Amino acid sequence: MARNLVFILALTSLYIGLAAADWNILNKKSKSRDASSLKNYCESWRINVELNNIKDFEVVPQECVDHVKHYMTSSQYTADSERAIEEVRLYLSSCCSLQGDGKDAWIFDVDDTLLSTIPFYKKHGFGGEKLNATLFESWMKQSKAPALDHTLKFFHEIKDKGVKIFLISSRSETLRSATVENLINAGYHGWSSLILSSEKGTRVNKQFTISSPWFNLLYKYRGLEDDFMKVQQYKSEARRALTKEGYRIWGIIGDQWSSVEGLPGAKRTFKLPNSMYYLS
Amino acid sequence: MARNLVFILALTSLYIGLAAADWNILNKKSKSRDASSLKNYCESWRINVELNNIKDFEVVPQECVDHVKHYMTSSQYTADSERAIEEVRLYLSSCCSLQGDGKDAWIFDVDDTLLSTIPFYKKHGFGGEKLNATLFESWMKQSKAPALDHTLKFFHEIKDKGVKIFLISSRSETLRSATVENLINAGYHGWSSLILSSEKGTRVNKQFTISSPWFNLLYKYRGLEDDFMKVQQYKSEARRALTKEGYRIWGIIGDQWSSVEGLPGAKRTFKLPNSMYYLS
Repeated sequence: MARNLVFILALTSLYIGLAAADWNILNKKSKSRDASSLKNYCESWRINVELNNIKDFEVVPQECVDHVKHYMTSSQYTADSERAIEEVRLYLSSCCSLQGDGKDAWIFDVDDTLLSTIPFYKKHGFGGEKLNATLFESWMKQSKAPALDHTLKFFHEIKDKGVKIFLISSRSETLRSATVENLINAGYHGWSSLILSSEKGTRVNKQFTISSPWFNLLYKYRGLEDDFMKVQQYKSEARRALTKEGYRIWGIIGDQWSSVEGLPGAKRTFKLPNSMYYLS
Repeated sequence: MARNLVFILALTSLYIGLAAADWNILNKKSKSRDASSLKNYCESWRINVELNNIKDFEVVPQECVDHVKHYMTSSQYTADSERAIEEVRLYLSSCCSLQGDGKDAWIFDVDDTLLSTIPFYKKHGFGGEKLNATLFESWMKQSKAPALDHTLKFFHEIKDKGVKIFLISSRSETLRSATVENLINAGYHGWSSLILSSEKGTRVNKQFTISSPWFNLLYKYRGLEDDFMKVQQYKSEARRALTKEGYRIWGIIGDQWSSVEGLPGAKRTFKLPNSMYYLS
């Protein structure tokens, strides 16, 4: 009898043990499936941002903040950006009959093209928090944004070819000296003009050579608090002014679609990855 | 003496064993690093194709064929395409004052937008082999390409809203009946016009309502063997003809940048992922 009891107890333990193991396996599988679905979902969100299918997002969806953080701090992000710059180099090796008359031009964005804002976003939720403009401006005023190394290298290569470099940024005019200081700290120098948004409108830094009635037109439209002219329009107008001045714009590198879309365009445009924010 | 010998032999074996284990670990690490670099490299290639930074590739780089195969047959590809269509749906829910006058229009690509060519590419190197046009045409003539399910669903939704659907494809006119048969087999019906490239040029299927002197112009430029007019130009001209006919093009869905770029454009364009081939 005692022997039977021991046998039954042993069988019951075995059954409970196996059931628990099964449950663990199922639970792990289900967790892994959930994690895999979330990864799929967030990767789809990110790729559709890069494809410009998802526009005008204010914040990264909460459930995808970790995914964006992981990507933007990964070797994949670096590799993707480097590959983009390699393609620019390849294009430039055969594309353009540079005239050497001082009218060959190239356009760069500033943030996340020349300078990385990742150190800021690391402390502010990687795009998952609505941007606090005051905090962001304070951070930009510290002039500590690091360069994107591959863009920095290319910047000097193209400058050494005699191409005029124009930096068109949606940063405000009030940030001019901090931006110049930051660019120089990060290794950039020798650009032809830094075009910023200003309270009175967008204008060209007068210490450089460009002036144009077209830029006066911009004054009328774009103010710091004025949403009337969106970034894409403002950047298009800046390009229009450059072409009116006789510049041949061979290319644009930017991390936002609004930097490369619109007319007049450039012979080629290159989009760097950035899924932390969207400027329309 | 014998005892010492055994001890030395044991130590030597231990050393060899440890060294072999070390080598195995190093070898595995190095292989894993190589695999990881290759994955990074190929993912960068793919993302830069989607960003339209890499253009005009004839074949997928040999070392990335497995990566492309893996992606194009993965749940990630399905999720990415589905998400794109969800964004179209979201846009359409608020974008457009549909007039219901028969002039609201939407444009679709055919291959890898409505119909999947993956079954063909599965048998032909996933873009790693230069396209054999004869084999591809034979395959298309079988009319067996399956639908992309999420596009199929959206196709009927938008049709039910009274929007006229135009299919603009770089497929040749000689494939018209096979293409129509395939589309119907796959569940599509009720489009307004299927615009194909023809030996004499691109024309609109006369059984439908569109005719325009603009299309006659196309005859002059685009022939089956004629590279003079690239896909982007041909598709832009087709859109120009539609707008001349009074159509309001609310959107385009395509898997190639050449289907969505160029003027006149649409109010919004949506790019589906496809890293198997490039049409410029």
